[in-house]
Amino acid sequence: MPENQIPSARTRVVREADRAVYDRETVYRILDEGFICHVGFAVDGQPFVIPTSYGRKGANLYIHGSAASRMLRQMKDGVPVCIAVTLLDGLVLARSVFNHSMNYRSVVILGKATLVDDPQEKLAALRVLSEHILPGRWDDARQPNEREVRATSVLRVLIEEFSAKVRVGPPIDDAEDSLFPTWAGVLPVEMKWGPALDDPKLEPGRAVPRYVGNYSRKRA
Amino acid sequence: MPENQIPSARTRVVREADRAVYDRETVYRILDEGFICHVGFAVDGQPFVIPTSYGRKGANLYIHGSAASRMLRQMKDGVPVCIAVTLLDGLVLARSVFNHSMNYRSVVILGKATLVDDPQEKLAALRVLSEHILPGRWDDARQPNEREVRATSVLRVLIEEFSAKVRVGPPIDDAEDSLFPTWAGVLPVEMKWGPALDDPKLEPGRAVPRYVGNYSRKRA
Repeated sequence: MPENQIPSARTRVVREADRAVYDRETVYRILDEGFICHVGFAVDGQPFVIPTSYGRKGANLYIHGSAASRMLRQMKDGVPVCIAVTLLDGLVLARSVFNHSMNYRSVVILGKATLVDDPQEKLAALRVLSEHILPGRWDDARQPNEREVRATSVLRVLIEEFSAKVRVGPPIDDAEDSLFPTWAGVLPVEMKWGPALDDPKLEPGRAVPRYVGNYSRKRA
Repeated sequence: MPENQIPSARTRVVREADRAVYDRETVYRILDEGFICHVGFAVDGQPFVIPTSYGRKGANLYIHGSAASRMLRQMKDGVPVCIAVTLLDGLVLARSVFNHSMNYRSVVILGKATLVDDPQEKLAALRVLSEHILPGRWDDARQPNEREVRATSVLRVLIEEFSAKVRVGPPIDDAEDSLFPTWAGVLPVEMKWGPALDDPKLEPGRAVPRYVGNYSRKRA
């Protein structure tokens, strides 16, 4: 799949196919707004799902191996994974229970997770992870030393087999329910950040940095 | 595992074991505040992860089969699943990048998902799902008819093999970083709901119900 505008049989959206999105740009926008993924992997047929943070650079998704030790122990040349990123935008209240829904944007990636071995690439990947979650922090914090880089495992997943689903807008009721006497509409939800809490050990007079005070996941 | 206060080898938390929680009450509190889970299952060694809503009643977790058709097609007497529920509470900024973390509460359940066949139990499960997500809505909306119940698949997972992880509080830095000149602390995050948006087709004068206007996931 050179450009992955076309889904594979495994990533083709089967349910509610009208909500499917396969273009890389939309997928990147969703990935860049989110920063928590759920990584699935299987050991002898038993699936495991682990929540962890991630960072993206180009077509590479990086995750902390430290948050996925069960996975790492299974891994040699790369372990098949499924990575899901889900952004919730609202509850959708139709007149019928059956047509209730949610507004959301979600991405599912199938791929192989491989260990980043090279210390230089690992350090760069750690920076990608850090800047993905909190842009500006890397240069303002004490950066990892050699021992810490060694102690951290980083996994790389190439974003090449993926799909996304997006639902927006008001409820869609069956025509025969249009007069059912109840409220219908959308209850939006978003992440509300802050205000920032100083570390109790913080030296007096140190202000909250702008990249923390103005924190937002919305990307231009 | 009669009461599951003791983790199985598969659910024992290996990384950051000090954050592990295994008591059923804490797990239920996390499950009851959340309503989106990530369901993992494997097909021929390939893991899949699907985000979907859920409801809990007692030790039963119910999910919509409709959101998991890939899984359903694989299933006969129950398919091994892993269900993860993750609540994010904040970014934790230490002085060193290495000690950055997140405050969160997460649950992982291993079990078998089985189809709810009996129409009565299915209808009851749909009510559990609806009331878990939006208490009060079931009685205020047009409830599912026989055809809709037939068209919906519901899966049941017994909550018996599980673990949880909880992190709270300020950053924990290494002693040698205590004087590093940067801000440290926690940037809290919560879900901000509303204001509710009327369906454009809503009849004039119908007010937003209290269970929508006062919506919150916080449970007493």
